[in-house]
Amino acid sequence: MVKTKVAEPSTPLDLSIPGYNEAFEDQLVHKLVGRIQDSKRPMILIDAFAAGFCVNAEINDLVRETDFPTLATPGGKGVVDEHLPNFHGVHLGSAGTSAHQAWAGARDLVLHFGPLNSDTNTFGFTAIPNPQVTVAFERHSVQIGGTDEILTGGCSISIKATLNKLLARLRTLRRSAPDPYPNECQTPREALRKLPKPRDESAVDQYSFWLLISTYIKSGDIVLTETGTASYGSHSLILPGETVAINSTIWLSIGYMLAACQGASLAQKEMCEAGTRRPGRTILFVGDGSLQMSAQAVSDMIRNRLNVTIFILNNNGYTIERLIHGPNATYNDVQPWRNLEAPSYFGAPKDEPSYPVRTFAAQNWGELQKIINNAGLKKGNGLNMVEVKMGVDDAPQSLRSFAEYLEMRNRGEV
Amino acid sequence: MVKTKVAEPSTPLDLSIPGYNEAFEDQLVHKLVGRIQDSKRPMILIDAFAAGFCVNAEINDLVRETDFPTLATPGGKGVVDEHLPNFHGVHLGSAGTSAHQAWAGARDLVLHFGPLNSDTNTFGFTAIPNPQVTVAFERHSVQIGGTDEILTGGCSISIKATLNKLLARLRTLRRSAPDPYPNECQTPREALRKLPKPRDESAVDQYSFWLLISTYIKSGDIVLTETGTASYGSHSLILPGETVAINSTIWLSIGYMLAACQGASLAQKEMCEAGTRRPGRTILFVGDGSLQMSAQAVSDMIRNRLNVTIFILNNNGYTIERLIHGPNATYNDVQPWRNLEAPSYFGAPKDEPSYPVRTFAAQNWGELQKIINNAGLKKGNGLNMVEVKMGVDDAPQSLRSFAEYLEMRNRGEV
Repeated sequence: MVKTKVAEPSTPLDLSIPGYNEAFEDQLVHKLVGRIQDSKRPMILIDAFAAGFCVNAEINDLVRETDFPTLATPGGKGVVDEHLPNFHGVHLGSAGTSAHQAWAGARDLVLHFGPLNSDTNTFGFTAIPNPQVTVAFERHSVQIGGTDEILTGGCSISIKATLNKLLARLRTLRRSAPDPYPNECQTPREALRKLPKPRDESAVDQYSFWLLISTYIKSGDIVLTETGTASYGSHSLILPGETVAINSTIWLSIGYMLAACQGASLAQKEMCEAGTRRPGRTILFVGDGSLQMSAQAVSDMIRNRLNVTIFILNNNGYTIERLIHGPNATYNDVQPWRNLEAPSYFGAPKDEPSYPVRTFAAQNWGELQKIINNAGLKKGNGLNMVEVKMGVDDAPQSLRSFAEYLEMRNRGEV
Repeated sequence: MVKTKVAEPSTPLDLSIPGYNEAFEDQLVHKLVGRIQDSKRPMILIDAFAAGFCVNAEINDLVRETDFPTLATPGGKGVVDEHLPNFHGVHLGSAGTSAHQAWAGARDLVLHFGPLNSDTNTFGFTAIPNPQVTVAFERHSVQIGGTDEILTGGCSISIKATLNKLLARLRTLRRSAPDPYPNECQTPREALRKLPKPRDESAVDQYSFWLLISTYIKSGDIVLTETGTASYGSHSLILPGETVAINSTIWLSIGYMLAACQGASLAQKEMCEAGTRRPGRTILFVGDGSLQMSAQAVSDMIRNRLNVTIFILNNNGYTIERLIHGPNATYNDVQPWRNLEAPSYFGAPKDEPSYPVRTFAAQNWGELQKIINNAGLKKGNGLNMVEVKMGVDDAPQSLRSFAEYLEMRNRGEV
């Protein structure tokens, strides 16, 4: 957006890592290899800060090379190709099944990339792995749990170099097959496989929606899920490789994601124009309640002629709040808007071939299926808005389970 | 809005004024009478906190009884009946003519009710009267300038009792006619009288608009003017008695007034239902730029079925900002919305006889005149929206003059 040119700096930019020490890095790699070789029950856990390290390719290589069972935190989605057979979905902590929790608790090694130990990202701190068995990867450091060798003496490492060295070493070693993720724990991929085809006239339910909509998402897409049911629903999304996922895992600021979507799409457009990013769509999932907080962002999208697809999950108010308190309270209702009139109200062009505006309403599965197959929507150029009617008391499974856990915790039962 | 009943307090509410001293109050009244009798060039100045004293009737009586030239600050409008012959409009300070400024500066007594000496309310502190000649009325105290008798010894007065005693005394006295407001200073009333009838096909200009729209305002109305051109335009409104004016005279928070309008209308509705307020309309004047900040308030109006009339002054962006900096800068443009689609987008009923929804667009004076005469709009029930097209570089006179003054001040010329 900034159009004013500034003079080039007179000296080259110093992009070196302060305190970088290659000998230290090599020792670290050696130790990591040892830990990996010694491990019988390992797990890789991809967390919220991992994407910022710019080593998605190396992390995916590590997941493939080790064949370690791999999970993501809610904030860690979008780094690993979720179609890899050893990717098993989100570490759900207290919102997962007992088998899931028992398995996670029994790990003897967790390679934890970019930890974000916030309440929300860890289901009330229940998905934080045991520090004793955790190797926490940061951008310029690695903390090995269960040893006294945490102090680095002021030395930094390069996460990229470390991973590449580690991968090179691992490729030369024979390792026994890791303890697998338990069959009884159903991953989103399996859930989707087993899902019966919904009947056309059936209401769109949260459980099926997030699994089925996964087939609509393609590599290169930016997928944003607003806080609330959308954010929890995203735990069941099966994201292809090279997808960017933007989720609410710290502040849960209602209304943030619509404006963030505008920003993400603008960045995507400029990066694509500059050739620094592969093409893709920007796709937002947002509830009808959240949308009202920052609806003006639709105006910005139009003003900047951004290519955006917005799925409005209309469930008549603040469903996540109903689950927490006041299921039938009027303060959880919202004034019903005619959401699909937004493009027109905010001044979208009515007939500008280079900026198509498409709106769709789905009352049931049959209608949604037809919409998803619309060629324009698939392409995702212009402004696209799909309003999906959902049950007022329907919620994604991870949200239901977590709400139940919170109730138990508030009663002092856990 | 709060529907839960709480128990009555067990003891009567203590509504007495802390430190109230009637003997002190009587001495004060005596002094005030002396100051008024000694004055040759008096002025009454109604300011922003005066309305909160709940003595509008007494202040109007004082204005009538003394026949003193009376002005209001921008925040002080709505207290005095502006059709009284000795009401002369807003004390414009540096935004007024030299004759206006000279006259104001030559006062030997200023009865100043509820002072708010903010930058905005006083045109850059230029409309603050000389403290030496000022008698400042607060809710529970009066400060007499130019004397040493400022200290009250911890005594409080009742503004209502003080004014009533003062009025009783003044009615028994013969006083000479006060120095009048100069003929050469045109008041809004005179400007309206002299205004040629605009031609039907002429664009709606700011100068004429604020004078002519005054005839649409009736006693009992609540009139809100959003910061920007609307707020400055309100200086030229001629408000009948018992009008509430809500204006931006401190923070100028863009977007505030649309939401404030929702609140004012809700309060008006509940007070009318409770019989504690005379009937009237809620009327907002807001620019197209400001409207975008808090457009959601229209949704709240609909949700609460509030009776509101909104004049959208569409001048293609932030005209007040253009006057200050960047007349042609794109950051002063806004995405053009289809403003009159707001009621539909925000879910207004399409056919609910008890809550009519009316939208009107005026491109010129002829159209606006017809709209103003619409019976439904005159009544003001339901949701009413009038979009008035105005010139991008047109502005009320007080804003133009103040912007010129600020430029001079910034150049160090005043």
